[in-house]
Formats: sequence, structure tokens, C-alpha cells
Amino acid sequence: MEAVDALVERLLAGNRRALGRILTQIENDGAAGRRALAALYPRSGRAHTVGLTGSSGSGKSTLTGALARELRRRGRTLGIVAIDPTSPFSHGALLGDRIRMQDLTSDPEVFLRSMATRGALGGLAPSTAGVVTALDAFGKDIVIVETVGAGQDEVEVAMMADTTVVVVTPGAGDDVQAMKAGIMEIADVLVVNKSDLPNADLLERQLRSIVEAARSGRVTPIVRTAGALNEGIDKLADALDEHRDYLAQADVRASHRRDQARHQVLALARQRLIDRVVIAHGSNGKLDDLVAKVAGRKLDPHAAADQLIAE
Amino acid sequence: MEAVDALVERLLAGNRRALGRILTQIENDGAAGRRALAALYPRSGRAHTVGLTGSSGSGKSTLTGALARELRRRGRTLGIVAIDPTSPFSHGALLGDRIRMQDLTSDPEVFLRSMATRGALGGLAPSTAGVVTALDAFGKDIVIVETVGAGQDEVEVAMMADTTVVVVTPGAGDDVQAMKAGIMEIADVLVVNKSDLPNADLLERQLRSIVEAARSGRVTPIVRTAGALNEGIDKLADALDEHRDYLAQADVRASHRRDQARHQVLALARQRLIDRVVIAHGSNGKLDDLVAKVAGRKLDPHAAADQLIAE
Repeated sequence: MEAVDALVERLLAGNRRALGRILTQIENDGAAGRRALAALYPRSGRAHTVGLTGSSGSGKSTLTGALARELRRRGRTLGIVAIDPTSPFSHGALLGDRIRMQDLTSDPEVFLRSMATRGALGGLAPSTAGVVTALDAFGKDIVIVETVGAGQDEVEVAMMADTTVVVVTPGAGDDVQAMKAGIMEIADVLVVNKSDLPNADLLERQLRSIVEAARSGRVTPIVRTAGALNEGIDKLADALDEHRDYLAQADVRASHRRDQARHQVLALARQRLIDRVVIAHGSNGKLDDLVAKVAGRKLDPHAAADQLIAE
Repeated sequence: MEAVDALVERLLAGNRRALGRILTQIENDGAAGRRALAALYPRSGRAHTVGLTGSSGSGKSTLTGALARELRRRGRTLGIVAIDPTSPFSHGALLGDRIRMQDLTSDPEVFLRSMATRGALGGLAPSTAGVVTALDAFGKDIVIVETVGAGQDEVEVAMMADTTVVVVTPGAGDDVQAMKAGIMEIADVLVVNKSDLPNADLLERQLRSIVEAARSGRVTPIVRTAGALNEGIDKLADALDEHRDYLAQADVRASHRRDQARHQVLALARQRLIDRVVIAHGSNGKLDDLVAKVAGRKLDPHAAADQLIAE
């Protein structure tokens, strides 16, 4: 454990290799990772954390690259966590993509980390919040989490980030009507990407009417971008700053941070509780026994759940 | 409670109004719903349950309608549970859609129920499995659950249904590469819908290579349909029957049912455990206290979760 404490010291002194090793420990979620996180957590909370989400094909990764370059031009240091397996920032990237990203990957002020999704069908790995905490404590000004736009991912990233950016694209098969409630619940900034496509005006009008209808206090800004053409990226960076300033109001930020903390604590508690039950009743056969009764229609699932947790 | 028992009797005698009222009680998830479910669960397990999922714009609802008509022609009785808010089977449907569905909605052998998603961003309501149980106990031959294709939904419907159908469409912005692992994990039948579109051949070839690469025992069939043109629907109905027959092998069905039961019991147990903790420590202020410490960076989330569940 002393080795961990020494690594933490080196991380806090700005050592990138120490950061990399601690991120691996956090991902492994063992005693070392927990200890590192406990030491780093009080040193975090300074970074502006940004979740960037949108369906596959929305040009999200190219947009993340363009945004990262704009933020570097503004002198910000960056952490990028790529969870989308199709992102060029992830290991799965095509060589050409990685070459295009080389200016970022070789920049010492940018730290890239790609992470696996929780399961084949998405959802953030439980350690994602810890990885963001470490990049934050390391001193990055902005930490961007790029995630594939599946339902559960979006909620989870929104609960973790200060600012959530939802990227939509004209004609990507996104159904604006279906997205309606969901977008208004999580998006702090809406981006119409590939704004050079024919239906961009229509999409923007639809989004604007949804945003207007849902307004209560702050109106969600809509930014038009064309990531591949590097258009509108300055506006997006401005929108991030604007939302960071909005959060800087003491009461807004306090309630946001409390919501995030509550979500994280309950998610971890939920997992630990069920792990305990499964470990206890998995080994003594009670779980298998109840499952067999339910599968055989001898007991209904609610009654089985009650029996499982009634020590 | 006696009123519930009488309703259950009427449901089992084939009374549609009793079924409707019990479904409402199950959705409300109170004592009456639990009692009804406990009585109905042992009478269920006979229906072939089919989950039908796919992204918005994949023509899933039109396909469900066409499939329902084909199954009725084959003499099967049907329950349809529509969770997708954009489905014409849901209340949100446009009038024109509902008129097109009138042959189904007025058929006494078809029982339609639309349900809300769990949250704005999808996920099945916890009561969905109970609604399927009631339709099954009512005596429907086939119960189709049509769900919006967001990540969490798909996993949940797959854990609930005997047969999971995943609908994809050429050029709908679905990234075959990204879907790869996910599809192979949940699809029992793959449908290339809108097969009259230009890229249908390409999509089918891509899917076929994924299916071949992942083969282990049964090879997932790929069915080409054009729901709006009523093409390929008989093939889809055949594929459902084929999978039902495959499941009818004693060992396959037993392991499938056990997996479903385990998933359901653990999901319910997880929810009850955290509810208990929130109720106990929500009222005594411990939860708020821990959340405030985490939000103030005085305690890390893992330590807070440990303290929360250490009675």
C-alpha cells in the first residue's frame, strides 16, 4: 500500500506515468485503486468535466478532436476519456484516424484514456467516475468523457459531468419526437453536427421548439457545428464556458454536486449490497434454490426477492 | 384483498376487463398487484414470449402489426405490450396509424397494452415482466413486447423474453461494427427490415459474417422483411416458431428459464435493498450527511457507500 501512496504523490507532482498506473489500478477496482481514489478525491473538484454523447454516426469523435484543439488553443489542459468503442481515441481506431489525432496524442498537456464499456450493450464501467477524479486531481482544466449514445450511458455520463453535450445530426435516424423528454433531461448544450447537411435547418427548428417548450430558467443553447470542416467549434467552446460560469453560481453548483454525489453513492451502495447477498446466498445454495423455484413457477419473483434479502 | 382474488378468478376465466384491471394493479406495484401476481405466476409459463427491439426508424411498429396479422392468420392468440412511445400501438400514436391498426385493436383474440418506459431515457418499467406474466396466464399463445431500441431496454427485454428479435435497417445510421457484440449477445432472430432499400444486401452480408464468426451451436437466422409491403412476414413467423421449437429441448429451455428467473430475482432484490437503505438512512439524515461530505470532497464515494450500508 505504501507503493500506492508514493504513486499518488508522484501523480500529484505531475508525473504522467504515475497517473497512467493509478488509472489502471482504479479500473481494476481492487484495494490499491480504492486507496488511491480515497487520497485523490479530496484533491479533485477543480476540473470542468464535460460529457459528450450522441448516437453512433453523429460525428462525435471528429467533433471531440476539433473541440480539443480549440480548447488547447485557448490554453486549457485536457483529459479525454473515450468510452465509445468506435472512437478514434479508443484502441479500436483505424490507423488513419489515429494519425489524424497525432497532434493531440503527442501533446503533453493532453492525457487520453480509452475505457471499455460495462457490457457489450453499453453502460459506463463503474470505475469511470474514478478515472475522471484522477484526471481532475492530476490538474487537468477540462476532462471530456466521450461516450457512445446508448440510453443508459447518457444518463450515467450526465450524472457524472458538470456539463453534458448531446450531439445530433440531420437525418441520422434520430427521432426528435422520441428524444424529446430524454434530451431535455440531460442536455446542457445541444449540438447540431454535420450542419452542412440538407435537413440541418429543420432539425434545429425542431430542437428549438422543444427547448422553448421546456424552458424553466436557463434555456439550453443549440450550437451548429461541422466537426469535419472545423466550423462552429469556437461557439461550442464558448457554450461550454458559458455553462461552467452558470454552474459557478454557488447554489446551482452546490445542488448539482449534491445530485452527482447522491447518484454515485447510491449506485455503489446498490452494487455492494447485491454483491453481499449473492456471495452469502450463492455459496449456501439459497439463491440457486429460489431461482429454481421461480423458474419452475412454484414461487413468484417478488416473493423470491423478499426471501433472498430476509436474512 | 378478496376483491383481487375475485378479479384473478375472472381473469383466469377469460374476462378481458378483469385482465385490464389487474394489469393496472400490477403497474401500480402495490399490495393488490403483488397478490395478483403471486396467484397468476404459477399459471404462467405456457405462452411464447417475444421481445421485438430495434432503433427508432427501423419500421419496428409496422413490422409488429404485420407480424401480428400473420400470427392471427395462423390461429394464434396474441398479447402485445408496446413500450416504445412512438409505436402506433401506444397512446401517442397518430390517428392514421391507429386506423391502420383497427383490425388488430378490435380483434377479441388480441390484447394490446401500452406501457410507459421507466424513465425519460428508456429502460423497461419494473412491472413489465408482471404484465407479461398476466397476459401469459390469461392464455395468450404469444406475447410480443415491442420496445424502443435503447441499450438498457434491449438487455432487459432479452432477459424477459423466450425469443428476442432485433430489427435493423439499411442506412438507419446503425453502425454494424458497434452493434456487433451486443447483437450476438441478445438476438435470437435478426431482421433486416425495409429490405427494398439499396443497401439491404450489404447489411445482410455484414450481419451474416458476424453471425458466422460468433457461431457456437445454433446459428442466429437472418430474415429479410419489408413490413410496409408485407414481404417476408411469413418467414419471420416461421423463424419464431423455429426458435420456440429449439427452446422446447428440455435442457435449453431449463437453462434459459433459470437465467431469466435469476435476472428477475436479483433485479428485484437489488431494488428492495437500496429502497430499504434509502428509507432507513433517508429519514435519519445519514444519507444526506454522507452525500454532503462527498459533494464537499471530504469523503470519497466508495467510503460513503461502505458507511451507508454498514448498519
